Amino acid sequence: METEIIEKERVKLKDGVLITGLPGIGLIGQVVGRYLTQELKAKKVATLYSHHFPHQVFMTKKGSMRLIKNSIYHYPAKGADLLILVGDVQAMSSVGQYEVAEKILEYSRKVGIKKIMTVGGYSTGKITEKKRIFAVATHKRMLEKFKKFGVVFGEAKGSIVGIAGLLPALGKLRGFEGICLMGETHGGYVDAVSARNIVKLIADYFGITIDLKKLDAKAKDSEKMLKKIEEEIQKSMIAPYESPKGVSYIR
Amino acid sequence: METEIIEKERVKLKDGVLITGLPGIGLIGQVVGRYLTQELKAKKVATLYSHHFPHQVFMTKKGSMRLIKNSIYHYPAKGADLLILVGDVQAMSSVGQYEVAEKILEYSRKVGIKKIMTVGGYSTGKITEKKRIFAVATHKRMLEKFKKFGVVFGEAKGSIVGIAGLLPALGKLRGFEGICLMGETHGGYVDAVSARNIVKLIADYFGITIDLKKLDAKAKDSEKMLKKIEEEIQKSMIAPYESPKGVSYIR
Amino acid sequence: METEIIEKERVKLKDGVLITGLPGIGLIGQVVGRYLTQELKAKKVATLYSHHFPHQVFMTKKGSMRLIKNSIYHYPAKGADLLILVGDVQAMSSVGQYEVAEKILEYSRKVGIKKIMTVGGYSTGKITEKKRIFAVATHKRMLEKFKKFGVVFGEAKGSIVGIAGLLPALGKLRGFEGICLMGETHGGYVDAVSARNIVKLIADYFGITIDLKKLDAKAKDSEKMLKKIEEEIQKSMIAPYESPKGVSYIR
Amino acid sequence: METEIIEKERVKLKDGVLITGLPGIGLIGQVVGRYLTQELKAKKVATLYSHHFPHQVFMTKKGSMRLIKNSIYHYPAKGADLLILVGDVQAMSSVGQYEVAEKILEYSRKVGIKKIMTVGGYSTGKITEKKRIFAVATHKRMLEKFKKFGVVFGEAKGSIVGIAGLLPALGKLRGFEGICLMGETHGGYVDAVSARNIVKLIADYFGITIDLKKLDAKAKDSEKMLKKIEEEIQKSMIAPYESPKGVSYIR
Repeated sequence: METEIIEKERVKLKDGVLITGLPGIGLIGQVVGRYLTQELKAKKVATLYSHHFPHQVFMTKKGSMRLIKNSIYHYPAKGADLLILVGDVQAMSSVGQYEVAEKILEYSRKVGIKKIMTVGGYSTGKITEKKRIFAVATHKRMLEKFKKFGVVFGEAKGSIVGIAGLLPALGKLRGFEGICLMGETHGGYVDAVSARNIVKLIADYFGITIDLKKLDAKAKDSEKMLKKIEEEIQKSMIAPYESPKGVSYIR
Repeated sequence: METEIIEKERVKLKDGVLITGLPGIGLIGQVVGRYLTQELKAKKVATLYSHHFPHQVFMTKKGSMRLIKNSIYHYPAKGADLLILVGDVQAMSSVGQYEVAEKILEYSRKVGIKKIMTVGGYSTGKITEKKRIFAVATHKRMLEKFKKFGVVFGEAKGSIVGIAGLLPALGKLRGFEGICLMGETHGGYVDAVSARNIVKLIADYFGITIDLKKLDAKAKDSEKMLKKIEEEIQKSMIAPYESPKGVSYIR
Repeated sequence: METEIIEKERVKLKDGVLITGLPGIGLIGQVVGRYLTQELKAKKVATLYSHHFPHQVFMTKKGSMRLIKNSIYHYPAKGADLLILVGDVQAMSSVGQYEVAEKILEYSRKVGIKKIMTVGGYSTGKITEKKRIFAVATHKRMLEKFKKFGVVFGEAKGSIVGIAGLLPALGKLRGFEGICLMGETHGGYVDAVSARNIVKLIADYFGITIDLKKLDAKAKDSEKMLKKIEEEIQKSMIAPYESPKGVSYIR
Repeated sequence: METEIIEKERVKLKDGVLITGLPGIGLIGQVVGRYLTQELKAKKVATLYSHHFPHQVFMTKKGSMRLIKNSIYHYPAKGADLLILVGDVQAMSSVGQYEVAEKILEYSRKVGIKKIMTVGGYSTGKITEKKRIFAVATHKRMLEKFKKFGVVFGEAKGSIVGIAGLLPALGKLRGFEGICLMGETHGGYVDAVSARNIVKLIADYFGITIDLKKLDAKAKDSEKMLKKIEEEIQKSMIAPYESPKGVSYIR
């Protein structure tokens, strides 16, 4: 098995909702995911590892190391039992992306997730004052609920690349309801404003009280972290001991 | 399993024929496939999903989303029970192409398909007045039947890339009869004339009455749709949040 | 299963020898393989198909089609029961190469093959009058036998790429004896002289009478055939309906 | 199964330690690994082959051939029963790297390995007089032990690419303790001084007497060997019989 989820703690949710925030357009997903887990002091319950992630490990300041991974946190909100998935990267190939998505869905079913809510950015290439939240949903019912919160359906065009799209769309086939929330953004920089809008929406939707003041600082922190990850991952694409002709077989 | 066919409705055909029309040379396959399903009001009976398709989903105008897929429609013609397979894309790698073909054959056997008829274009690089229909067939019997309809055998040279060739050729190994019909075309543009010839051939061969007048409009529509799909699929090959050195791990 | 060998006729050999002649340096392997099967009128007993071959089919002059494949022929020589493997291509990736080799070994064991003899070229970059036959063998015993026929051991340096090396080396792990015969050659053109030397060696070694006169003509024929195959295979690496930005998802 | 470990001799270790020395930054891992096995006259007990290694075989001076591989040697030190893994290459893809690592861990568990110690280089881009040994460890206990030997924890930053990182990090998930020792080095050349430091550390740690005088000569030898391997492996990325357009299907 090339992707596995290792449970730290077995959870059993009632009508659980999985929220995912992974790297993507404007870093909105990742900023939202990290902010939620940190501010809500959500509890880590599982870790996802995949052979489709880069073949390298990160060194920690304390002299330890860790695999590249995605992590799943639990937070019992008033409105629903939430799992929040965050992580360093998404899988490196189409086959890997689908496999990781299937594995997340398998785990989700096991622990009682019923709805899947992914967070991403919607790149307009423009800088706008008002940043709307666009979305697509798998079921009418869910669409109607989010419309009441001002979420805009039917205006985002084109396609969603990666887990933010695959998870709800594959999830529909496997019996889940799903929605992908997309913060309107330029696309060329980390958008803390758009991320804040989505955090607020999620808080309102689930009846969570969350302080939004630290979001700007946290977004900068997320950006810095991701830049480092990015630089490191480039190393697995270059041979450390390069031959004159640039053969890359020595990892 | 990395490719799956999900049945909406179980069909049981008697001497069924599977016709495939997927994107390819001159878009002839796709135009023919879409025209047949739409004009004949064929009924959708199954959907094929594959981990070898791009890892992205399309957003719909109604605020919903859908995976990249191939779809299978059913139309009971006078001459034979037809299934028509159409779709957004073909698999992205050799291994994926073979796997998808095997899965289609497995499904075909299960529902009673006996013959496989794929539709593609044969690129000559020239603009000709008369557009012939070339073909290759797996069995003499089938070749003889189609010759009577003016189809030209033994003149097309070289190879057929993708599902249009793999499906009948692999199908032969699995006990099916097969033919690949190729509309003569320039290769550099969408060829509605060549597509119309093949629709007419299929209609005549199976005793179907079909109005050919809307084909030009539909071909333009197919072209537009494909251009959009094309643009979107390029996105899964570029990182949305690009690093200065262009690392593409963030999907 | 991504590679399969379909038997046309079940053979049961006693101390059988498998000879392989596939495309490679100086086309020597392929010329030798094809010449042996044609001149000896060897009987086709099995066909190997693989998902690791290009995803395309060849059209025949008679209006039929065939998958890309390797073929196995049987010829009962005086000295030993021979199987000869020839084909269009080798697998397209490392994983594919190993898989195809393992499948050939599995089949070989089943039908009673004990020794594996692959044929290739050894490129010197020089044009030499006298073209030696170099070789490496898995067992001392085999090495000694071939030395008596003038085959040179211990002078060829470096590595052997593809099935010509993998098959005997992997074969050793699976209980076979093996040798790779390499005709000395320039490397930049099809070398009929070097191929003839190897055909003669094989004939002498197994006590086969074979007319060598037609070899030059046949070598030219092999070259022509391979050039065509080459041109066709390039097509599976280019999209037939290319987008302006060159996306290649339409096969 | 695409990666396999073939045992030459079954070992059963008590609190065994696996040391790996494979090609990487400054060639430090490989020099250390080869020096240890040769100077300690360690006994070869197993060989690892993988479909994720290049599809080629090396020719030997004696006219034999061998697959690309990793080898495992056994040396019963005073302080612990050691296995030393050395080899030509690391796997060619992320999926391959993870698979090979998992296979090594599976074997390790079977034979009684408890701790995993990988050796690599830490590239600073600078030439320094004093070459420290940096490390990251999976458990506090191990970190503390190595600190006493002057090993520096918490200063190396970034990530470790390949087996040197994957093996201890994945190993932690599978119940092993692990450490990655990294010799400080420039990164642009083979660093025998840094390698010697690590050999000395390992000798001291396990109470092994080992002569360090030959290390310079052996490092040069390792470098020469690797350059050859490098040159050869490039061949599997180029077609031996190249078409004008550079198609690479003929391996």
